[in-house]
Amino acid sequence: MNSTKRNKILALSGGVGGAKLALGLSTIVEDERLSIVVNTADDFVHLGLRVSPDLDTLMYTLAGESNQTQGWGLQGESWQAMNMLSCFGGDTWFQLGDRDLGTHLMRTQAFHQGQRLSEITETLCQGLKVPQKVLPMSDDPVRTIVKTEQGQLSFQHYFVRERCQPKVTGFHFDGLEQAKAQREFVELLQDPTLEAVVICPSNPFVSIAPILHLKGIRELLRQCNAPVIAVSPIVSGMAIKGPAAKMMKELDMPCTALAVAEYYSELLDGFVIDESDAKQAEAIKQLGIETLVAPTVMTTLKDKTDLAEQVLTFCHTLQKEESICGL
Amino acid sequence: MNSTKRNKILALSGGVGGAKLALGLSTIVEDERLSIVVNTADDFVHLGLRVSPDLDTLMYTLAGESNQTQGWGLQGESWQAMNMLSCFGGDTWFQLGDRDLGTHLMRTQAFHQGQRLSEITETLCQGLKVPQKVLPMSDDPVRTIVKTEQGQLSFQHYFVRERCQPKVTGFHFDGLEQAKAQREFVELLQDPTLEAVVICPSNPFVSIAPILHLKGIRELLRQCNAPVIAVSPIVSGMAIKGPAAKMMKELDMPCTALAVAEYYSELLDGFVIDESDAKQAEAIKQLGIETLVAPTVMTTLKDKTDLAEQVLTFCHTLQKEESICGL
Repeated sequence: MNSTKRNKILALSGGVGGAKLALGLSTIVEDERLSIVVNTADDFVHLGLRVSPDLDTLMYTLAGESNQTQGWGLQGESWQAMNMLSCFGGDTWFQLGDRDLGTHLMRTQAFHQGQRLSEITETLCQGLKVPQKVLPMSDDPVRTIVKTEQGQLSFQHYFVRERCQPKVTGFHFDGLEQAKAQREFVELLQDPTLEAVVICPSNPFVSIAPILHLKGIRELLRQCNAPVIAVSPIVSGMAIKGPAAKMMKELDMPCTALAVAEYYSELLDGFVIDESDAKQAEAIKQLGIETLVAPTVMTTLKDKTDLAEQVLTFCHTLQKEESICGL
Repeated sequence: MNSTKRNKILALSGGVGGAKLALGLSTIVEDERLSIVVNTADDFVHLGLRVSPDLDTLMYTLAGESNQTQGWGLQGESWQAMNMLSCFGGDTWFQLGDRDLGTHLMRTQAFHQGQRLSEITETLCQGLKVPQKVLPMSDDPVRTIVKTEQGQLSFQHYFVRERCQPKVTGFHFDGLEQAKAQREFVELLQDPTLEAVVICPSNPFVSIAPILHLKGIRELLRQCNAPVIAVSPIVSGMAIKGPAAKMMKELDMPCTALAVAEYYSELLDGFVIDESDAKQAEAIKQLGIETLVAPTVMTTLKDKTDLAEQVLTFCHTLQKEESICGL
């Protein structure tokens, strides 16, 4: 009986919330076992620079370079370029720190030289000494358009410039139908050694949906032998960070962990909800989804590591079937 | 007799050396009387950004923002973006400070929006509170190519990356024949109120030559009623800054103020040489060029102001003829 040893962990993530769990996973899973596929539908060109906010958040977090106080961006950041730009009456609604600019300058130049986003991301991860595999969901451009009562807004205009104020009526992902899922992402979903797919507690509508709706990905997730688990980004009817809860209200969805489980339902083998939402566990199980109740609010590194451990342990109870390789 | 009052001063300048005299002029000439036309043949695109080193040096110097210690760039500068870029193995041979990046981001974005370099420069000057008129020599791209024994190099590759080491055999100004001199520059040369044209002590071959060789400029300089004066960038056989002296040797020219006067000869009404070169005055006068001997090494602001005063006084002795307007 040479059953293939399952050991690879695949996390799907947006920005800050997802990066917390990814960091937790990175502390308990050997580097080469962990891959994080990251939303790129928030990416945009600003001041002529290619900015990939979620990829950067992941890289900076895994590198131990994220700004804990600010909640986004780099530690030890300064704002000299933005201050200068401000003197000239330039666009400063999207703040690019001086250190952060180094990343965007590098990425932009590499783009101009014809490199793919995944190649560029690998170079950036090497520079930041991030040993895990951080993969953009696609090398092709996908752009989230937020449909609002004030018209359509590109994601960063909605999120940063308008501070999520406009009432959301829906989403569109420009380029999604033409975009190919990143090659290593697809290969990993077909890899018999894949042990778990973890959908991080990121915004389901604008961070995870673009990844899941890449052509073929939902089918691969349904077919893969590894269990697919999501961690609820909604805790006690609120989002820890970002506009997920506000969006749910505006989209006439109940703002609950249960509603998130229903949103993902057909893809999930397991769902992790916060202790404060324990009463929803039964209803989620009735969707045919195994449910773990755990402390999901990650403040300290220990919180992140503890949740990552609980998620992986939960995952082991959900193995769909033994690998048939070697039988 | 309503003779038109001549009061406008036009300075032609490259970077650091020229900016010193321009700063001197700015302290004794009312803001609206002074225009500085600046070499743009050193401009280049670096890391996807539009960099105009000589324009920036002029603006920063006139704004009182130049870095006195370093001798180039901005005061209060930091290098966080470059340090980050260095982590990624990016190009750092041309150091762009964080504050400086704000300028380049603004200029690059404005270029992408279709603005002309002179419009952009006006915006930048407003932001820096530079009240004098700083004009790029042309809104069209001109690029200095330095011909060397190691092949052709773009100017910044020769100047910064190769630190002026390769032996120079000549120059080529790509785009010069197609480039139109900036409109206000041309108008000023035809302006009956023009009082003086001052060629600053910049590199004759790579800073001043591109300006002088724009189509029609030499003719306009010969025809204009205002005297044309140059200040020698060569003092005691050396250049105060930059590769002018090294270039002269490599081009088999004597490295003297006299040789600079000969280089400009047909255009000049007056030439200013340093006291240490006083013995050359007679030979320069024999070229038909009036010569002023003065302290031309500008270290302090007083040096700059004193030289500017001497230059303008000298200029008054050289008025070609009274303006015929109003006769």
